[in-house]
Amino acid sequence: MSEPLVLGADVGGTSAKAALIDASGRVLGRGRAAGGNVNSSDGDPAGNIGAALREALGDHDPARVAAGMIGMAGSAAVPQKARRVADTAWQLAGLTGSPRIGTDLDIAYAAGATGGDGVLLLAGTGAVSAAFTGYRLTKRCDGLGWLLGDEGSAVWLGIEGLRAAVAALDGRGPETALAAAMVARLAPASPTGDPRQDLVAAAFRVPPARLGELAPTVVAAAVEGDPVAERIVTAGCTALVRTASVVADRPRCLVLAGSLLTTPGLVAQRVRTDVTVRFGVEPVVAPDPVAGALLAALRAADFPIPPDLPARLRAALDTTAVRQS
Amino acid sequence: MSEPLVLGADVGGTSAKAALIDASGRVLGRGRAAGGNVNSSDGDPAGNIGAALREALGDHDPARVAAGMIGMAGSAAVPQKARRVADTAWQLAGLTGSPRIGTDLDIAYAAGATGGDGVLLLAGTGAVSAAFTGYRLTKRCDGLGWLLGDEGSAVWLGIEGLRAAVAALDGRGPETALAAAMVARLAPASPTGDPRQDLVAAAFRVPPARLGELAPTVVAAAVEGDPVAERIVTAGCTALVRTASVVADRPRCLVLAGSLLTTPGLVAQRVRTDVTVRFGVEPVVAPDPVAGALLAALRAADFPIPPDLPARLRAALDTTAVRQS
Repeated sequence: MSEPLVLGADVGGTSAKAALIDASGRVLGRGRAAGGNVNSSDGDPAGNIGAALREALGDHDPARVAAGMIGMAGSAAVPQKARRVADTAWQLAGLTGSPRIGTDLDIAYAAGATGGDGVLLLAGTGAVSAAFTGYRLTKRCDGLGWLLGDEGSAVWLGIEGLRAAVAALDGRGPETALAAAMVARLAPASPTGDPRQDLVAAAFRVPPARLGELAPTVVAAAVEGDPVAERIVTAGCTALVRTASVVADRPRCLVLAGSLLTTPGLVAQRVRTDVTVRFGVEPVVAPDPVAGALLAALRAADFPIPPDLPARLRAALDTTAVRQS
Repeated sequence: MSEPLVLGADVGGTSAKAALIDASGRVLGRGRAAGGNVNSSDGDPAGNIGAALREALGDHDPARVAAGMIGMAGSAAVPQKARRVADTAWQLAGLTGSPRIGTDLDIAYAAGATGGDGVLLLAGTGAVSAAFTGYRLTKRCDGLGWLLGDEGSAVWLGIEGLRAAVAALDGRGPETALAAAMVARLAPASPTGDPRQDLVAAAFRVPPARLGELAPTVVAAAVEGDPVAERIVTAGCTALVRTASVVADRPRCLVLAGSLLTTPGLVAQRVRTDVTVRFGVEPVVAPDPVAGALLAALRAADFPIPPDLPARLRAALDTTAVRQS
């Protein structure tokens, strides 16, 4: 009889990514398709997720797939719909049975966790922390959106940077390199001749979630020594550590995830240092959440997980990612 | 020959208000109609302004109107369109000739100014300051919208209050009476059972300009001694004084306008005290901007303005306003 295979998928608003491994953890295939946000009626979430699963499966016999886990952003709010979408996607890929379902937080934690109890701190477009007990989410903090929360996220950094730039141009705030940098990014042509008005008008044209694309401009200015940008980055990092500290005081394991904390740079470095001091535990930077989906699938199917498997998965998936890009 | 008459109008997004006076400053009529935002293609700005003018004119002979001034929010950005709208409104009211045009800032300053040179600090839905020389705007600061500016405005206070409420409910921020107060205002039913999510969802359903309606909740909590609300109000007042200080260092005359600064309360009182100390001049609280339009019209027509006229106009328009409400 052939060795069993395991499928895992990470499904967000902009992409659905999947990978296939054998029971020893060897990556046999990967797939990628358009987003499958289960909260949105736009597009075809089941079709997209199904396409990513099928591509990961390749020529392997679907009957060999013994377990699967699909991590879907937003699925906790609409569990029945998420179940229907996941089952349809599974069938579209020619698979039988039913996959496990988790949220984006579940698979992000599973991707880096060294045990079932611990804390996830995720900062990308948004910012959220979650405490896990036995790999189940027990408490969360923030993740409350760009208008009132997501403190320390990329969008938060971008908006704070824009505010500082506008205040400097307006004479209300201290001078900062962010003024010229933000004008160059968003409104280099200055149609009205008033850079304040042009910057405000340009910012209103950008969907809030995309203001996170300005975070690297703020971080770069901080690295160059701009005191205003430095204060913003420091406030963001402080907010992130606070968000993590709300869900647990002394976590056994601390997983950092999301583009701000997994991409090397000032924020990742600062938060890593600050959480080590604050919690007395060395954080783990989570690899691709697809690895978390695979590990969760193995665990759900009671397959043994060799101690070196997380590291091997990370390396394998990272290599594949680099090769594909 | 009959004594000449003067018409003035204050035109904003939600209403167009007009008043008719004789040359001695006696208020002979008032009118009010729907908004006439000249930047918006919705509705019929000229028709609305015309209706307000006609109602103020009443049975008086239009031929007696020797001067008029229409203050229109946003008119500086589209001067030719504003001119067309004002002339059409004037004709719709049966008037001949052409009225003067100004912005909402021009008439707000004229309503309270004790001279042609000075500073206007306006805080209502938004927040803006402007310096005037010979009643002409020469410099302005802020007024840059709720996303990146309007520091210290009602919308700013409302959003800061909401952020503090959400942070307290989330465990990220200090406890504050604002948490219960904001939940009671925006999401008393708590459909999801998580007041954080309910508050965020409710806030996203409110158009940003209407978040200013939450400012009184923040101010009330500050008056009751809530330290978080107190910090927000103090930061808002500090920001307003800073906005004023950007456009002039030692203004001869300082006019306070906008609902936050003309309605008695903690913010009006604080800002009044702080600007007196900062600028060494007792501020004037501007009455109804319609009074400013009338005074500007008299001035433009070279009619003499008795020293007691501003105070009389204020009293007359306030009385009428109270009677109408």
